[in-house]
Amino acid sequence: MKIGVLGTGMVGSAIATRLAETGHDVRMGARQADNEKAKAWSASAGPRGSHGTFADAASFGEIVFSATRGDTALDALAAAGKDNLKGKVLVDVSNPLDFSKGAPPTLFTGSGDSLGERVQRAFPDARVVKALNTVNANLMGHPDRLGGESDAFLCGNDADAKGRVAALLREFGWKSVIDLGDIRSARGMEAYLLFWLAVSGAVKTSNFNVRIVR
Amino acid sequence: MKIGVLGTGMVGSAIATRLAETGHDVRMGARQADNEKAKAWSASAGPRGSHGTFADAASFGEIVFSATRGDTALDALAAAGKDNLKGKVLVDVSNPLDFSKGAPPTLFTGSGDSLGERVQRAFPDARVVKALNTVNANLMGHPDRLGGESDAFLCGNDADAKGRVAALLREFGWKSVIDLGDIRSARGMEAYLLFWLAVSGAVKTSNFNVRIVR
Repeated sequence: MKIGVLGTGMVGSAIATRLAETGHDVRMGARQADNEKAKAWSASAGPRGSHGTFADAASFGEIVFSATRGDTALDALAAAGKDNLKGKVLVDVSNPLDFSKGAPPTLFTGSGDSLGERVQRAFPDARVVKALNTVNANLMGHPDRLGGESDAFLCGNDADAKGRVAALLREFGWKSVIDLGDIRSARGMEAYLLFWLAVSGAVKTSNFNVRIVR
Repeated sequence: MKIGVLGTGMVGSAIATRLAETGHDVRMGARQADNEKAKAWSASAGPRGSHGTFADAASFGEIVFSATRGDTALDALAAAGKDNLKGKVLVDVSNPLDFSKGAPPTLFTGSGDSLGERVQRAFPDARVVKALNTVNANLMGHPDRLGGESDAFLCGNDADAKGRVAALLREFGWKSVIDLGDIRSARGMEAYLLFWLAVSGAVKTSNFNVRIVR
């Protein structure tokens, strides 16, 4: 499948690399077409990797990952272009963390809204799925790097879109993908990061995840 | 040990009952001394149970559980009285959920504050420990009711107070108690509830918890 990845940081690179490894054609998008990180990534990614602007990557992908920093996600998506996202599965991986007043951060959306919902409202013709924001970049594509099974979570308004993202997550190695319902559940998935940060401090690693125990 | 429990609802009753079962003398506190639920609880609790006003329960306890609804917690603690809480371990179990605009709820503290911190600020001479707010009443005292091991979390500014609460949790059956640091981590423990609610909807039960997988 052709997949666009918006973002050249640790998260964008990890997802783009894993998608190429699992057999997809991946175009990494950046603000500028000659972005050095995107060039380096596509040079190392082999024949399945390419790079371009945000619009190039969005136009290329049947599925598009929004993997920029949370506070620039809507700008990057605007640069990607509404027409290039129309009807597409748009996977929102970003978190609305505001570190401007130091740690612990706040949620710049407040608790009654979410970045996932803001993306869906701004791009009503895209089929937004919130996913992978609850683990670090190292684990997103490699849940097997943990010492036991843990759970992936997703939410969104479009059942077909969620099914397609769940299939990608299974290719990444996720054996359990829990559907949390419509895009409003992005509030919970994003607020979870405040808990994640506290746990990370306590266990002294960001390489962890949760398993739901019933 | 003598322990006061403020609150007569499902959470207060579950904690009070489990404390009495594990050998503590428990006084349940309510706004009115003749509260019907508190009377019924102490009648059923055996010789270790008694009841009274919030102030009676706080005065009685060496450790005091704040187990009212989140939106009435500070009022209940004010009725309990600063002098009755001075120097004591005050276990804050409540969540700052605001359902006034329907579900999903918001956090009435916002994401840059927490009920745990508000309680600590309002009662600076109490040693506040946030605990047990991440599971339902049925599991708080009985983690063995789940099909596998899961984790309890706590946070607070006073190491001795956290150690005493962790000891109570172990008496309840919690084998893993993770210390998330100072009381600011109550933000994460409370924001987690938005995630908890989404997961609860997905797995169609409130009888679940998380296990940290590394």
